[in-house]
Amino acid sequence: MSDSVYRYDVIVIGAGHAGTEAAAAAARLGARTALLTTNVDTVGQMSCNPAIGGVAKGQIVREVDALGGLMGQAIDATGIQFRLLNRRKGPAMHSPRAQADKKAYQNEIKWRIEDQENLDLRQETVEGLWTEEHAEGRRVRGVRVRGGATYEAPCVVLTTGTFLQAIMHTGEQKTAGGRAGEGTTAGLSGTLRELGFEIERFKTGTPPRLSGRTIDWKQTERQPGDEQPQAFSFLTDSLPQTQMDCFITYTNDAVHDLIRANLHRAPMYSGQIDSAGPRYCPSIEDKVVRFADKNQHQLFLEPEGRQTHEVYVNGISTSLPRDVQDQIMRLIPGLEQAKIMRYGYAVEYDFCPPTQLWPHLEAKTVEGLFLAGQINGTTGYEEAAGQGLLAGANAALKCAGKSPYVPQRDEAYLGVLVDDLVTAGTDEPYRMFTSRAEYRLLLRQDNADRRLTERGYEVGLVDAARRQRLHDKLQQMQRAEQILRDGRIEDTPADRYLKRPEVRWAEIQAQIPELATIPAEAALQVEYDIKYAGYIGRQKQEVSKQQRLASRRIPTSFDYQGITPLRTEAKQKLSKVQPLTLAQARRISGITPADIALVMAHLEGGGCGKRDQN
Amino acid sequence: MSDSVYRYDVIVIGAGHAGTEAAAAAARLGARTALLTTNVDTVGQMSCNPAIGGVAKGQIVREVDALGGLMGQAIDATGIQFRLLNRRKGPAMHSPRAQADKKAYQNEIKWRIEDQENLDLRQETVEGLWTEEHAEGRRVRGVRVRGGATYEAPCVVLTTGTFLQAIMHTGEQKTAGGRAGEGTTAGLSGTLRELGFEIERFKTGTPPRLSGRTIDWKQTERQPGDEQPQAFSFLTDSLPQTQMDCFITYTNDAVHDLIRANLHRAPMYSGQIDSAGPRYCPSIEDKVVRFADKNQHQLFLEPEGRQTHEVYVNGISTSLPRDVQDQIMRLIPGLEQAKIMRYGYAVEYDFCPPTQLWPHLEAKTVEGLFLAGQINGTTGYEEAAGQGLLAGANAALKCAGKSPYVPQRDEAYLGVLVDDLVTAGTDEPYRMFTSRAEYRLLLRQDNADRRLTERGYEVGLVDAARRQRLHDKLQQMQRAEQILRDGRIEDTPADRYLKRPEVRWAEIQAQIPELATIPAEAALQVEYDIKYAGYIGRQKQEVSKQQRLASRRIPTSFDYQGITPLRTEAKQKLSKVQPLTLAQARRISGITPADIALVMAHLEGGGCGKRDQN
Repeated sequence: MSDSVYRYDVIVIGAGHAGTEAAAAAARLGARTALLTTNVDTVGQMSCNPAIGGVAKGQIVREVDALGGLMGQAIDATGIQFRLLNRRKGPAMHSPRAQADKKAYQNEIKWRIEDQENLDLRQETVEGLWTEEHAEGRRVRGVRVRGGATYEAPCVVLTTGTFLQAIMHTGEQKTAGGRAGEGTTAGLSGTLRELGFEIERFKTGTPPRLSGRTIDWKQTERQPGDEQPQAFSFLTDSLPQTQMDCFITYTNDAVHDLIRANLHRAPMYSGQIDSAGPRYCPSIEDKVVRFADKNQHQLFLEPEGRQTHEVYVNGISTSLPRDVQDQIMRLIPGLEQAKIMRYGYAVEYDFCPPTQLWPHLEAKTVEGLFLAGQINGTTGYEEAAGQGLLAGANAALKCAGKSPYVPQRDEAYLGVLVDDLVTAGTDEPYRMFTSRAEYRLLLRQDNADRRLTERGYEVGLVDAARRQRLHDKLQQMQRAEQILRDGRIEDTPADRYLKRPEVRWAEIQAQIPELATIPAEAALQVEYDIKYAGYIGRQKQEVSKQQRLASRRIPTSFDYQGITPLRTEAKQKLSKVQPLTLAQARRISGITPADIALVMAHLEGGGCGKRDQN
Repeated sequence: MSDSVYRYDVIVIGAGHAGTEAAAAAARLGARTALLTTNVDTVGQMSCNPAIGGVAKGQIVREVDALGGLMGQAIDATGIQFRLLNRRKGPAMHSPRAQADKKAYQNEIKWRIEDQENLDLRQETVEGLWTEEHAEGRRVRGVRVRGGATYEAPCVVLTTGTFLQAIMHTGEQKTAGGRAGEGTTAGLSGTLRELGFEIERFKTGTPPRLSGRTIDWKQTERQPGDEQPQAFSFLTDSLPQTQMDCFITYTNDAVHDLIRANLHRAPMYSGQIDSAGPRYCPSIEDKVVRFADKNQHQLFLEPEGRQTHEVYVNGISTSLPRDVQDQIMRLIPGLEQAKIMRYGYAVEYDFCPPTQLWPHLEAKTVEGLFLAGQINGTTGYEEAAGQGLLAGANAALKCAGKSPYVPQRDEAYLGVLVDDLVTAGTDEPYRMFTSRAEYRLLLRQDNADRRLTERGYEVGLVDAARRQRLHDKLQQMQRAEQILRDGRIEDTPADRYLKRPEVRWAEIQAQIPELATIPAEAALQVEYDIKYAGYIGRQKQEVSKQQRLASRRIPTSFDYQGITPLRTEAKQKLSKVQPLTLAQARRISGITPADIALVMAHLEGGGCGKRDQN
């Protein structure tokens, strides 16, 4: 058998939300990139809910878009309902969310991948990693695929989702596989273990999907989209599609009693599954147990597309046996006659605790190996996409001999995400919340382009057209600010007048007609800048303070054992995480200010670093 | 574990081209129908070429449509290029063919299935058949599915495609699975063997798919669609879409030399595969061996959709190893730089020789069990769809206590198809040809509605609207015939004038303006009726003759062993096939007129039939 060898700069394994962003990002940076998937027909598939965005997640999508990623434009092209969540709260909480036409979304992502220069999408089953020892440790050389072929590249990005050693559970029934009707990936898990990676297991789950034809919609509450839908992408000018409605119904005591009576048959409670699931996206059996005093839970009935009757029941993820799932439906208003098209299930899978990665998502022990998405213990399409974009970009930057790109906590939710992961790890599937971001008034969904697009352009992720669009907007903002400075309302300078809490832009514009020439997006930025100047200023001061600590860099091979007075626990944790800065060291759970003082003193005395990463 | 039981009239297993038509047909007839598939996302998937129709196959699609089936309307809605093949030959040879947008077609079929009344589409993995002995033999009771549940029904339609004990081959590499990235179905094969079914193996194959971005189109020949595309469905009024082009290139001596040098690595020649493949859809390695004197073979580059760069290379199906597939591309004009997105492969699978079925596609030894599609040894989406429609309809008819519907050889290609299969079986994957139909001037694509729709309405397959459409057309035809009888051209009655070979309808219409009120479809029918009256009359006489033989029915349990003078070979063949009529008996290969005379004499003396089928 003569071995085929294909040479690339970057190889991405897996074509879900992480893998597609990774491959597209690497290719945008000019790396010759291969995206390998076991089935080209499932590129970009939405395995779980047919929606993009949501609280904190919507912010991530806007950031991915601001950095030239795929997700925002894809959902704008294929969304069937758009809503800006938390509209009544402050702008830091505004979060875009959209229902997707599931198949159309998948096809849109596939098309963008196929159409990306420097990127080859290929149907391959990866059987193992190819690595070698070199002077400074182990490094990746490529991957072996089924059929006697090898892909060779200095950088490999692993985005295997839930497919590593995956087992699906529905009640007592266990099936090998990462998604219904599809297989699992065994070889890679073995390779990672052999390479010395710590591997743990998480679980996640999906709810049943119903035939909309069998739902009695009259018994449910209609939830329409926004009248003036907002796009995800900073490049989208309009969302021309008519929108579809979602509907709401509720569980009740009868449902909860039924579930309690069948808890011994739920894999989460029978002992069949002992890995942790996403605490903030619990199964219905979890909800019934953990919130025993609640006598109802809200369920969202979400259409899966324009040309399908499939309905996703958001809020009732479950791995209870099928007969219980059938019976639950009988008890829910509107669903009494509903027929399940696909049963809910839980899936257990291997992941690599992410403290094994540098902040740029490269493995500490295997040079050139990047991990992104659920393999890092996260949950959610958006968290996966964000990591994928960064991992792909950093793989390409490494190939080009350039420094990695790591957005910081004060720059992006993406910065919070990777810092949380590599610094603290996670003991449950990690999802983003606005509460994880200490500077969330800076990290608004509306200003993601202002925060990231220029830097994205420098890195090579963003093209000139997108950057120009940002520059146009900044110019419009400057013009608006000038008009406001020059204008007066009730003898008050207009910019000061706008500061008043009850005053909105529309009112100012009515008084100063010249403002009508300012596009809405730019106007909103100016309004927020002016209105929240006080809060923003204080957060920026805090950022500066942190940056001083962050500027105290620690060499990657710093010898914590050599700091004799350091507590044993601190030595262990610091050695494991290998923080790159004192700021990161301080964020490690259990590390005290006293520990930091010791490290700082030792650093000033001169560390023993081997090389300086990032 | 408490077993869930779901009760239906008809259960269809598998949701490919056979299964979807079967389920939709049964449901149209009013049977409560369940369609079970391992993955709802792959309903109606085009596993191989992105096209519908072709010579003789296009006729089948028109017949499926005339009987209310899905395929015609689905391809009309999602076609990207339409051509009427053999336009220059006589109307018996005219064959519609269309390229499909693969994903859109699949989604269209899924949507029509989801939208069909009486039909439940459910994601289930079938593990085995449930049968029982009763007074007159064995009958089906339902199926067992994964997860401890049972579907109960008096009729089950098996349409497992290539998934029974499937093995995929690419060079030396073997993988269990019926389609790339998907698994195989093992349990059902075992059940069928236990039930005493003879099981054999066939193989089929697919070509590589290329990225269109990497093809040098300038080196290929453009093949556009028809300027005035013809629809498949008798219900379609217009095909509004713009059409896409296909392109043509060729293999050459260098390609053939390369293949010859690697024949020992081709599973078909290395002995790794020993089952028969479709002779008329051979792999490229087959072509090179069997047509050694040809120094080129035509390759059609077919786009797989409007929003994809994937290109299907029709004409180069192969299971050669990947490195050879890569090298072949380097040698073909226009494909020198082409990148393969998915490699070609062969797949071996179990099928049940169809002589084990009655003409209405029910198994002879298991009452209520129907088989359709590739499990019967056929190849092609259209052959599968046609069998599926008939099997589904007959399952529903059986549930309703009605006689089966079996179109005869003089009524439809579908009649030829099922008669060929159950009478002669097949020793290679069976595909339809016009040459298989002895009355092909009667079985034209243009008159499928006139042949079948009224009968379809009686059976319950066709709704009132479709039938009305036929009646309107027949009225238009009557009016046209009257006008022609009344009109005169050059002192000749217009209908006689039209008989002249060189005269076309347009010329007549120019002379008799009243004809302009006749719609084109009706006009074409009248023109053919008049022009080919002589040929059609002779074929109809032949049909009458055959019908006399066909009216001589043979009881299904007729005892051929009791006819002492009958040759042993004839006894064996007749006992195996159990022909329902003398006409069918005569079509069994190896049965002589003398054998028929003996059987006839015995029949007249009184047979020993137990019950009379059909």
